[in-house]
Amino acid sequence: MSQEMLRYDRMVEAAKRGVVKQALREVLTRGGQLPGEHHFYITFRTDADGVELPDYLRAKYPTEMTIVLQYQFYDLTVDADKFGVTLSFGGVLRRLVIPYTTIITFADPSVNFVLQFQPDDAPDILVEEEEVEDEILPDADEPTAGDDESDDTPRTTGTVVALDAFRKK
Amino acid sequence: MSQEMLRYDRMVEAAKRGVVKQALREVLTRGGQLPGEHHFYITFRTDADGVELPDYLRAKYPTEMTIVLQYQFYDLTVDADKFGVTLSFGGVLRRLVIPYTTIITFADPSVNFVLQFQPDDAPDILVEEEEVEDEILPDADEPTAGDDESDDTPRTTGTVVALDAFRKK
Repeated sequence: MSQEMLRYDRMVEAAKRGVVKQALREVLTRGGQLPGEHHFYITFRTDADGVELPDYLRAKYPTEMTIVLQYQFYDLTVDADKFGVTLSFGGVLRRLVIPYTTIITFADPSVNFVLQFQPDDAPDILVEEEEVEDEILPDADEPTAGDDESDDTPRTTGTVVALDAFRKK
Repeated sequence: MSQEMLRYDRMVEAAKRGVVKQALREVLTRGGQLPGEHHFYITFRTDADGVELPDYLRAKYPTEMTIVLQYQFYDLTVDADKFGVTLSFGGVLRRLVIPYTTIITFADPSVNFVLQFQPDDAPDILVEEEEVEDEILPDADEPTAGDDESDDTPRTTGTVVALDAFRKK
């Protein structure tokens, strides 16, 4: 046959990435707040094209990294092909830009919702579906730097979790 | 809590309907032809708002109906919220317009691809996932009416399949 076959796998993958985008957009419509107990775990490829993060974080997480969006995240932007968010790492605000195609896992443990992806540039990575476990580096709610500082230093504290939180060995 | 929770179920449902739209769009990009052995079984609610089909077909299929798109379908249109297609029923061309929200099942048996939906207006309908069976009324490839008729009577023959093709009893 002369015509390329229909790639449902790619269509479904793209649709799932659309769900991530939609979930992030719904956070925007709520003023950048996650309702109730909702929180997002987003694991993405740090070595993929289009990912923007500080060099020291890329050095620390050379292949992938997980961020948590719950209480302390700022300046969320949701574009057609990527999102951006500012998180605190050790009290320092850092801006991350993450294309949807680099996301490996999107999870909202509050409702046991998990989406697993096969990044375009990493066909050899296997991520198995399983319930979210709690191997998380717990610094999401550490005391903030306070809001009495200069305007360009908003109160902070993000969270980075171990990349194996969603993966079987 | 004051804010509405995130409805992942709806997001996923909408994303799946987006896959149907994408698959139909890919048919359009191929000149309205399905590549290879691909064929679409689409089951939809005949009693839902926005569905357009002849009265006699609605009388015959008062709740749902399945169409097959493979060789003989015409004038496929793919809009944001619905698609339209012209099929032959007993040698007579009929135009159908089907909103994506009325679709119960989309399947491409050539690759064992099935999407099941919960139509918005039919929360009591349960459709179980299973492999496509072959309880199909086989008139997809009956001889066409010929293409030597007037220009507004293109060569035809559509297919209607039993609605239980995808459903367990």
